[in-house]
Amino acid sequence: MVSRSATLALNDAINARRATGEDIIHLGFGEAGLPVLPEAAAALADGAGQNSYTPVAGTVRAREAVAGYLSRGGLPTDASQILLAPGSKALLYAALSTLPGDVVLPVPSWVTYAAQAQLAGKRTIPVPIPGAAGGVPDPELLTSALAAARARGADPRILILTLPDNPTGTVAGPALVQQVCELADRHGLTVVCDEIYRDLAYDPAAVQSPAALLPDRTIVTGGLSKTMALGGWRIGFLRVPEGSAGHRIADGITALGSELWSCLAGPMQAAAAYVFDSPPPVLEHVQASRRLHATVAHAAHDIFAKAGISCRRPQAAFYLYPDLEVLRPELAARGIRTGVALADHLLEEHGIGVLAGEHFGDAPEQLRFRAATSLLYGRTADERWTALRSTDPVSLPWISAALERLDGTLRALGSK
Amino acid sequence: MVSRSATLALNDAINARRATGEDIIHLGFGEAGLPVLPEAAAALADGAGQNSYTPVAGTVRAREAVAGYLSRGGLPTDASQILLAPGSKALLYAALSTLPGDVVLPVPSWVTYAAQAQLAGKRTIPVPIPGAAGGVPDPELLTSALAAARARGADPRILILTLPDNPTGTVAGPALVQQVCELADRHGLTVVCDEIYRDLAYDPAAVQSPAALLPDRTIVTGGLSKTMALGGWRIGFLRVPEGSAGHRIADGITALGSELWSCLAGPMQAAAAYVFDSPPPVLEHVQASRRLHATVAHAAHDIFAKAGISCRRPQAAFYLYPDLEVLRPELAARGIRTGVALADHLLEEHGIGVLAGEHFGDAPEQLRFRAATSLLYGRTADERWTALRSTDPVSLPWISAALERLDGTLRALGSK
Repeated sequence: MVSRSATLALNDAINARRATGEDIIHLGFGEAGLPVLPEAAAALADGAGQNSYTPVAGTVRAREAVAGYLSRGGLPTDASQILLAPGSKALLYAALSTLPGDVVLPVPSWVTYAAQAQLAGKRTIPVPIPGAAGGVPDPELLTSALAAARARGADPRILILTLPDNPTGTVAGPALVQQVCELADRHGLTVVCDEIYRDLAYDPAAVQSPAALLPDRTIVTGGLSKTMALGGWRIGFLRVPEGSAGHRIADGITALGSELWSCLAGPMQAAAAYVFDSPPPVLEHVQASRRLHATVAHAAHDIFAKAGISCRRPQAAFYLYPDLEVLRPELAARGIRTGVALADHLLEEHGIGVLAGEHFGDAPEQLRFRAATSLLYGRTADERWTALRSTDPVSLPWISAALERLDGTLRALGSK
Repeated sequence: MVSRSATLALNDAINARRATGEDIIHLGFGEAGLPVLPEAAAALADGAGQNSYTPVAGTVRAREAVAGYLSRGGLPTDASQILLAPGSKALLYAALSTLPGDVVLPVPSWVTYAAQAQLAGKRTIPVPIPGAAGGVPDPELLTSALAAARARGADPRILILTLPDNPTGTVAGPALVQQVCELADRHGLTVVCDEIYRDLAYDPAAVQSPAALLPDRTIVTGGLSKTMALGGWRIGFLRVPEGSAGHRIADGITALGSELWSCLAGPMQAAAAYVFDSPPPVLEHVQASRRLHATVAHAAHDIFAKAGISCRRPQAAFYLYPDLEVLRPELAARGIRTGVALADHLLEEHGIGVLAGEHFGDAPEQLRFRAATSLLYGRTADERWTALRSTDPVSLPWISAALERLDGTLRALGSK
């Protein structure tokens, strides 16, 4: 049995502490932290009458909208290649359950992949990410990791990529993705590429989907949780390859979906159809969100950099993944020798919630954590709209105060 | 790997045939066939702003509403005993995955239980239902079935009940439920009682939940799919027992839910909170729905009875489960020797869609099927509202025509 998702558990714990009046800087949860676009809310309300069970994969209308969205983004897609579900999480699980073989994972990577692989009865083969960016295994290490896994009796057949990446907030560049895809092809791996952060790359043109390089063996997942800040609406999609191999995978996922979730709720499919049609209000909202995420994540990165802490500069979404190795002596003097101890210390002593790298697959002694900056935009819808519309969000009092507290905390950690 | 849910697959197939212009009487799908209550649609629209991930089990507000609903229904419940999810189907799967041991199933029973048990790596021990009603194993057969299963190496620890029942549309009476609960207690079985049709019992007072008899070892599931005809909204709940045993089960389900579906969508929780508060418009809507279901199901039952076909008289929801054994010679003369052949014949030759008993666990040669009468209420929202408000729905042209066609078909089947 798996244990509870660490990221959801931390979020619940922080919200419980806040409810008792504690002033917590919440950098521990991957929620986009922005309000609902009114036009999307209207589309949901307009779809309220849709109370029939839809086909398991979704309505033709919603599937066509997703196919159109992907096609416009450079990945020609037919509606028959699309499955919708209450969250891409459910679809990822169904894909892992349907595909044969064990799972190769970049490390660090999202907490849920390894848990789902375990649920699906699979082994995981962790491969560290390269220095350039996260979300992909280091090509220099992949071949030997596969050989070692096979020698241990594993059967690696699936490679999960995250593009753009959670937890590092980086985007593996086209050359790196191509190198990884060539290795996946050579070693017979099916690629499952989680592109839930795709539209939040600060340079959208820099995202090279493996589905364009390995069309016959790449599954893509995505959704509206991050791009449109609709995590609580639970709208996800999965794209299978064209042709009979893809249809077989879709049949397997549909069979499992029919016994686990039936379909994405009809009103949510109506809202999804509206958003994936990419009308101007949606495009403007996403553009403004991307700009805000970039500005605040970069400001946070500057604070880590100023403290001499190693951290890849974010290129997408709202994540940083700093490595506090440089502060190991000062931390050890406080009894902090693991990533979990560091995260606990930050929460208990400084009221800053982050998720320790161990939850993403790091070794316990690594002094890394994921900091998500998106819950700094405000606690109320008003604050969040103000941040979204601001030309200088970092100077808003509630954001600047949080960043200053982060700065002060890093200085305190680094002091003797 | 499981195959696709037979009931969803048939629904998709019938809708595809209808799209080509075929005139199909759709008795093959367990959808309640009624429009959305406007106040529930308004509650969904009001909740559109709820785009945060909620706790996995749901918001306090929604869980309290469900607990209140159950408490008013005679089952005192605290909000901490309630978990919400996108459909009780997902929760049933999580419960079966969390509980140890193999699964005892009444037969016939809902198509999904056996598939989920298989997905959870469990054996199923089928036990026929008694003549009095479905949804429970025949107490006369249960003890010996358990002994035989144990002799085969199985470890029966879970008993699934359906109260009121799908597919028979009946309600096991209090004495029968008590007898089954005593046996469950004696044999150490945890009861998982699917009460999704609870509010559609024509005599609500006749439903005796096992949770009142075996409070420490009964899990109850329910939702809004049937009572409120909101199948396409995917709102389900699960109630664990009070105390530490219940909390352990809830923790297991929450852990699994955190990796599979995260939470029920926020706007859906807002709608659920409204409905489970049981305001007058909801109570009136459910009462009218119950009356319509009873009237049309009884009219259909009269047609089977007139044809001399054995069929339990429906006591809840919108299902009948006729046994055409009496027509075996006439059916055999047409080459029909199995329930599946009978269902195929009804669809191909008479344009009547029903689901063969084999999908509910019957032996192939049994000439039984489930007929759902709820999709006779109309194809448009207008027709459905008219049916719901009618004092004599059976005389509405679209309902009477369908029932006449059923009558004519049974006469044709019985002719030499």
